[in-house]
Amino acid sequence: RVDGSRLWSTILETATFGATPAGGLNRLTLSPEDGQVRDWFREACEAAGLEVGVDALGTQFALRRGRDMSRPPVACGSHLDTQPTGGRFDGILGTLAGLEVMRALNDAGIETEAPLLVINWTNEEGSRYAPAMMASAAYAGEFTTEDILSRRDAAGISVGEALDAIGYRGTEPVGARKIGRFVELHIEQGPILEAEGKTIGVVEGGQGIAWFDGTIQGFESHAGTTPMPRRRDALLGLAEIALAVEDVAKAHGPSAVATIGEAVIGAPSRNVVPGQVRFTLDLRDPRSAILDAAEAALRARIDEIAERRRLTVALTRIWRKEPVPFDPAIVDSVEAAAGALGLSHRRMVSGAGHDACNLAGQVPTAMIFVPCRDGVSHNESESATQSDCTAGANVLLHTLLALANA
Amino acid sequence: RVDGSRLWSTILETATFGATPAGGLNRLTLSPEDGQVRDWFREACEAAGLEVGVDALGTQFALRRGRDMSRPPVACGSHLDTQPTGGRFDGILGTLAGLEVMRALNDAGIETEAPLLVINWTNEEGSRYAPAMMASAAYAGEFTTEDILSRRDAAGISVGEALDAIGYRGTEPVGARKIGRFVELHIEQGPILEAEGKTIGVVEGGQGIAWFDGTIQGFESHAGTTPMPRRRDALLGLAEIALAVEDVAKAHGPSAVATIGEAVIGAPSRNVVPGQVRFTLDLRDPRSAILDAAEAALRARIDEIAERRRLTVALTRIWRKEPVPFDPAIVDSVEAAAGALGLSHRRMVSGAGHDACNLAGQVPTAMIFVPCRDGVSHNESESATQSDCTAGANVLLHTLLALANA
Ligand SMILES: NC(=O)NCCC(=O)O
Ligand SMILES: NC(=O)NCCC(=O)O
Repeated sequence: RVDGSRLWSTILETATFGATPAGGLNRLTLSPEDGQVRDWFREACEAAGLEVGVDALGTQFALRRGRDMSRPPVACGSHLDTQPTGGRFDGILGTLAGLEVMRALNDAGIETEAPLLVINWTNEEGSRYAPAMMASAAYAGEFTTEDILSRRDAAGISVGEALDAIGYRGTEPVGARKIGRFVELHIEQGPILEAEGKTIGVVEGGQGIAWFDGTIQGFESHAGTTPMPRRRDALLGLAEIALAVEDVAKAHGPSAVATIGEAVIGAPSRNVVPGQVRFTLDLRDPRSAILDAAEAALRARIDEIAERRRLTVALTRIWRKEPVPFDPAIVDSVEAAAGALGLSHRRMVSGAGHDACNLAGQVPTAMIFVPCRDGVSHNESESATQSDCTAGANVLLHTLLALANA
Repeated sequence: RVDGSRLWSTILETATFGATPAGGLNRLTLSPEDGQVRDWFREACEAAGLEVGVDALGTQFALRRGRDMSRPPVACGSHLDTQPTGGRFDGILGTLAGLEVMRALNDAGIETEAPLLVINWTNEEGSRYAPAMMASAAYAGEFTTEDILSRRDAAGISVGEALDAIGYRGTEPVGARKIGRFVELHIEQGPILEAEGKTIGVVEGGQGIAWFDGTIQGFESHAGTTPMPRRRDALLGLAEIALAVEDVAKAHGPSAVATIGEAVIGAPSRNVVPGQVRFTLDLRDPRSAILDAAEAALRARIDEIAERRRLTVALTRIWRKEPVPFDPAIVDSVEAAAGALGLSHRRMVSGAGHDACNLAGQVPTAMIFVPCRDGVSHNESESATQSDCTAGANVLLHTLLALANA
């Protein structure tokens, strides 16, 4: 069994790096605060006897040697970066539970057959740099390291520059690190486990995600002198598109969700009719065909809005992640571990994207969920109980032991 | 008669200060570029033999002495600041035409009875600091100098700091400068003169303006895991409010206009349902009662939207400028000057706010409009012809002469 109160203390301790007044975290990937928590994580892993390496995209790998070093390690982990108004559990639980599992094995004097690995993936959140789960996608070969290094944030800072600024451009080639199995513990980030009173989510896969960049071009004009019918107001275009996005998601529901998370008026001024708006769109569904249908329906709605309002709208898909099934054998191992520990559980699909979804194409992979309060995540008030975090970490411990000693 | 090609040259020459690639100007009030054009204006006025003073809010006053210095000066002028995507004529024509009138009087060796004054008012546009027509409002006693000096832009820089940064915190107390009459030449910024093929607008007054700051509070949550019906999306609230603003303006039309010019999501992220949005609202009509009715109608719509979407919306009126009638005798003088010069003309109300609207409460005031292409203003493509600018400057010359020698 893991030490639940030690795990809880590390969660509270690392929550000082990037703490917000509202009790959440603002620890964008590769920010100074992300650098601080990485330093903390490296030192804690080294103190637990782990060997820590860093790859060219900053991902940290902490190895616990096994009896048979010819076997590829059984890995766990998640991420330590957060949203700008993020919580204290999203990603953090899975990473620190990995550390706690290693400490618990040390305390019990247990040596595994295969080595074990705890990973802190760079930029899982996708808030500062798109796409989300960036480093694990590069690990899985979906992007080249050069492509990722050259991506820029809103301030024009590249991933490479940001890595150098915090000293985390590592020497390991991306993808070189061997991984035999991957298991990620995470808060559910949705309402299902809490609503059903279950402690463990046995995750069978992740839903599909499509990300888009949009621009709306209208015509700037004087707010006091331009008659309403003559206006080509880009913000009114956004308003109609946002409501169409909601409509289309609901029409493909209840599974589909769609969100405009960013929207910026170009050269805004109180007394100028907005001439330009940039926005982002996030569209998800567990089925590929629904992603296609929702995108097509939305494009038709946008065309109609653009024509009626004499606007030019461009919508570019910048990323698409197909729905991912996890490895049935590892899913069974997770379920067996939850059962053996006497924890209530149910199978489910993840609504959020996770590094596990990228690993799944390369390596047998599964995930473990625990409930979070009111299903709320990507919010400073995100919360989970110590008892649920401990339960999840115990399921992780037992699943890793079963895989590493098989 | 003024020298139309000399006037045109000064317009082109000053259009280098803050020039944008698209052929417009980005010369926000009290910016370094505004400092450059102010220096240019001071030197040009001094070269024309005028005495230039600056008040505590940076407004420049260039005096041409008259035979009877006991009479208060007859003033003209406008402003040299622009919108972030502004044009080369809005405000600039009226200020530089004032300079051209002085040069033309010098060339002709004409001395007037009353002295003449050309004014460059600080922050007419209201884009960097609210409200618009800030310095002329303080001149007219609507705000104290201390209040205005302490207002801050989006970057937190106060008016006082911005004045010091460009060396334009002058020594004259605001309001101390005597003005006997005020006449402002401006582009129409609307489509009427062009549509009717008229050269001169004889402006009888300005419409009412109300400015508001709004906030929408929802709840940040995960874009992938939050079911559509559970969301409290502040951006969808903005979308409905923006369309309600359009509806309400049209319902009080054709005179009423309303615009959301600025809208900003708090802590935006691609995969976060927006939890907070700030926005501005600009509402106008020539009748006070319509301003009241439109505001009430909009508040009712907003209440319904907020309740249905479980959002908290606050809408605060930060400025209201009542509709202003100009002085009938000066309006007649403008009309007479246009007639004497053989220029086609019509009476009209201004859709834009102008410094003249603030002066009108203190000093007999009127305005002269000339057409602008397609009625477009607050846009980099704003344009007016040399011949219309010359015509407007000649009407200004004749009106000032009539008033100063009366
Ligand atoms: N787990 C998580 O919140 N990941 C961020 C990527 C996403 O938007 O799903
Ligand atoms: N003339 C002009 O564009 N003034 C700016 C203030 C307003 O919005 O009307």
